[in-house]
Amino acid sequence: MSARIDLNADLGEGFGPWQLGDDAALLDIVTSANVACGFHAGDPDIMVETAAAARVRGVAIGAHPGFFDLRGFGRNRIQESPRRIERDIAYQIGALQACAALAGARVTHVKAHGALANLSNEDEAVADALARAVAGVDPSLVLVVMPGLAAERAGARAGLTLVREIYADRAYAEDGGLAPRGSPGAVIHAAEEAAARVARMVGEGAVFTIGGRRIPVTVDTVCVHGDNPEAIAMARAVRMALEFAGFSLRPFADSSAGSFAKTCPGS
Amino acid sequence: MSARIDLNADLGEGFGPWQLGDDAALLDIVTSANVACGFHAGDPDIMVETAAAARVRGVAIGAHPGFFDLRGFGRNRIQESPRRIERDIAYQIGALQACAALAGARVTHVKAHGALANLSNEDEAVADALARAVAGVDPSLVLVVMPGLAAERAGARAGLTLVREIYADRAYAEDGGLAPRGSPGAVIHAAEEAAARVARMVGEGAVFTIGGRRIPVTVDTVCVHGDNPEAIAMARAVRMALEFAGFSLRPFADSSAGSFAKTCPGS
Amino acid sequence: MSARIDLNADLGEGFGPWQLGDDAALLDIVTSANVACGFHAGDPDIMVETAAAARVRGVAIGAHPGFFDLRGFGRNRIQESPRRIERDIAYQIGALQACAALAGARVTHVKAHGALANLSNEDEAVADALARAVAGVDPSLVLVVMPGLAAERAGARAGLTLVREIYADRAYAEDGGLAPRGSPGAVIHAAEEAAARVARMVGEGAVFTIGGRRIPVTVDTVCVHGDNPEAIAMARAVRMALEFAGFSLRPFADSSAGSFAKTCPGS
Amino acid sequence: MSARIDLNADLGEGFGPWQLGDDAALLDIVTSANVACGFHAGDPDIMVETAAAARVRGVAIGAHPGFFDLRGFGRNRIQESPRRIERDIAYQIGALQACAALAGARVTHVKAHGALANLSNEDEAVADALARAVAGVDPSLVLVVMPGLAAERAGARAGLTLVREIYADRAYAEDGGLAPRGSPGAVIHAAEEAAARVARMVGEGAVFTIGGRRIPVTVDTVCVHGDNPEAIAMARAVRMALEFAGFSLRPFADSSAGSFAKTCPGS
Repeated sequence: MSARIDLNADLGEGFGPWQLGDDAALLDIVTSANVACGFHAGDPDIMVETAAAARVRGVAIGAHPGFFDLRGFGRNRIQESPRRIERDIAYQIGALQACAALAGARVTHVKAHGALANLSNEDEAVADALARAVAGVDPSLVLVVMPGLAAERAGARAGLTLVREIYADRAYAEDGGLAPRGSPGAVIHAAEEAAARVARMVGEGAVFTIGGRRIPVTVDTVCVHGDNPEAIAMARAVRMALEFAGFSLRPFADSSAGSFAKTCPGS
Repeated sequence: MSARIDLNADLGEGFGPWQLGDDAALLDIVTSANVACGFHAGDPDIMVETAAAARVRGVAIGAHPGFFDLRGFGRNRIQESPRRIERDIAYQIGALQACAALAGARVTHVKAHGALANLSNEDEAVADALARAVAGVDPSLVLVVMPGLAAERAGARAGLTLVREIYADRAYAEDGGLAPRGSPGAVIHAAEEAAARVARMVGEGAVFTIGGRRIPVTVDTVCVHGDNPEAIAMARAVRMALEFAGFSLRPFADSSAGSFAKTCPGS
Repeated sequence: MSARIDLNADLGEGFGPWQLGDDAALLDIVTSANVACGFHAGDPDIMVETAAAARVRGVAIGAHPGFFDLRGFGRNRIQESPRRIERDIAYQIGALQACAALAGARVTHVKAHGALANLSNEDEAVADALARAVAGVDPSLVLVVMPGLAAERAGARAGLTLVREIYADRAYAEDGGLAPRGSPGAVIHAAEEAAARVARMVGEGAVFTIGGRRIPVTVDTVCVHGDNPEAIAMARAVRMALEFAGFSLRPFADSSAGSFAKTCPGS
Repeated sequence: MSARIDLNADLGEGFGPWQLGDDAALLDIVTSANVACGFHAGDPDIMVETAAAARVRGVAIGAHPGFFDLRGFGRNRIQESPRRIERDIAYQIGALQACAALAGARVTHVKAHGALANLSNEDEAVADALARAVAGVDPSLVLVVMPGLAAERAGARAGLTLVREIYADRAYAEDGGLAPRGSPGAVIHAAEEAAARVARMVGEGAVFTIGGRRIPVTVDTVCVHGDNPEAIAMARAVRMALEFAGFSLRPFADSSAGSFAKTCPGS
């Protein structure tokens, strides 16, 4: 029996007349889609279309909440109280649940976006806000986290099911976090290199730091991007390398609305 | 055993730093709250606070979706396709469901706001979009409609539970619709007059037109407003008149999150 | 001495992280740029960048005001009073004037966008609102209009300098207006056909209707688009056909900030 | 001949259906109005109305630019590059210039709002962005600054005319900055105390710190607030105290559109 791994990417990042990335190509590569929920990108029309497109391909649907900052694409750190952050996140999850329901699907995971993700990895209070929002809306939702950081601890405290992710195109610092974007070698641009790296990290259950250390971590999913043709090519290479290494690519959850959705229409 | 009637009003119509209306006063008068969902008014913080305040008073919580038009307060008729309108409405219902869940409550009804409400009363395609959105998110949600108009027919087609409302401060035209705001006598300003009128309409199960006709309708709920001190005084007078006439004021649904919410956390 | 013609297109139609159209390609083709002002598209960063890019190429800079409707890209007809429409337009013109000033340039024309343009062609009160806004902010601004419609009359009433435009890719109805998009032959897709048509219309000073009529009109500028590679190719073909026919392509106004801007920094 | 002082307040801080503060009352008290420009509050309709109301009372009109953050009322520190901040500020100044022109008035000063004001007092790069925006749009605009902080230095570097302000309701720290809101005695609530304090500070040309120090500063204007009835009462008391002390209350600039506006309509 082959080991199982998930491949996730951010989708539905357009707004109104604007598009971003090649969702159609990504949906043929990944097994889980993190769908923007209208605060930093996405609108109800895009959300239903994205959920429907994911569903027909068996791609799991997750909420990808961000800060209320359309112009800044959720990349600005907005200084809100954890209480307000919790409510912003809950709002977005619920909105996507309803859009997914219209597409005959359901939301099965949550992954924070941009500055909100960064803050939830660094700040325990924001991490707890994220975990409380998920647990408060639906404790069966899976929370996607980076191993070793604040969001993972908060998710565990809240009793959530956690899924640990590694990044296909980012190098790791000595503490197991991502090497800062500006630093040399922090971002991997070659598809082949990224693919080989990912296969090795998933295979060994470890991340490799710039300095050459090997840090054992649980790896449930690999994050890829689709912002440009190079990113799509890298995502495809990563998938092929994992398949070649014998992994079974499957979502960590099933977003098709089965009997569960029939009993509980709102979820 | 006394007959039962509901009193509903729009609440949570602030945004960010701005407030509108006296929600605290209204919550002591009404039995059902239609909560703005962020498109024409409302934000996640206000939505959770409003849901929590409604819950502790036993006031039922409903979604009050409107057009995506904050500056225009949802009063502009926006020419979107019924498909997009359906998705906008679903998004807002889901968002409020999640905010209500954080407040330990659940959403039990839906009532359209402003230009969306007007359109859904006139245009069968928009009415069907509203009904599909409600049924698609949660078919157990009750739809509040004006008797005799398109939304009522669409809700019936979709198999939804319907609640019929009359307006405390508006006169009725000969066809049973509201007399246009501009026309003489269309808006009732005196609290006593409105209260007496409402008690008679609820008691007889009929609306009375400007021309003097009596049109029998089902009356499940009475809509009052809280935009200014006069509106609050009128709402209070309407409640007192109904109580004096022997009606039992109770919400048509129970929004406290009981065992149902435990099994189906998203709804 | 060769006759002179202008070629205009809408530019700067991105927002935040999103782009729309190929502005760099268009700026090498057109002589006048209609720059989105933040209500339906555009943000201050994009506006300054677009003004700067236009300036270095000698392309004239115009304000392209639209309805306050980012999600709908200004394509929804929003029912506002003419007074409010006038103020919305003035706001956008002033905003672009300031952004152009940062780029060392100045705004020399105004052309309405989307639903606002359509309304200003049909509704005299909206047309007057447009003309009043332009005259109120700066009566030396040139107003771009379609010949024969309400905006042209309103601009004349307001004493504005008018520039008449024809469309490269649209067929004309028998009344001299554009044939509705849905109707057969209303939109011209072949670059060669459009180019030949434009050269003939500009040369003869007339538009040709679907039914075969020839309606004499003043033609000062030709509107082209840049939303996709086909549109860019068509715009290039139109320019080449006009040059081949002996026309001198020049903007109807000079947006470089000369001595005028020194004395009046705000304009 | 009596010495002259200005009294300024933030106005036009509503948005769409929402209002904030009592502008009518404030306009009878202050001599300069800082008008919100649509990014954190204000819309074109409110801006024109506010400019018109200020004009008829001889109150000077200033731009009050803030971060693009309506929900947060411009109170969040948004991490944008100084270049983008400069452009956001220019956009807002230009927008108000055009709205003022519709009201037959002109903008004569600029004062930053909320988090943008705080940042421009602390961060030299943001302060320079503010000064560059003002100088780039119209170098004759007066910049309102707090004495001793970064914005004052940047304004001087840019060659702008500066107006120094003190706060009526805030205590000063030992370094001459405002005592942080949380600290004991930082905010003055009693109208009489504030009025007496202001008269003394203006009279002596100095601020008084919590610790009892007296720091000489130039005082050209006093900032008052109008968010609630208590603030209005305090503003009125401050004005009366200054008049009683013999000061002539006059704006530092004249916003009525005279011959200047006729020649340079955009400014």
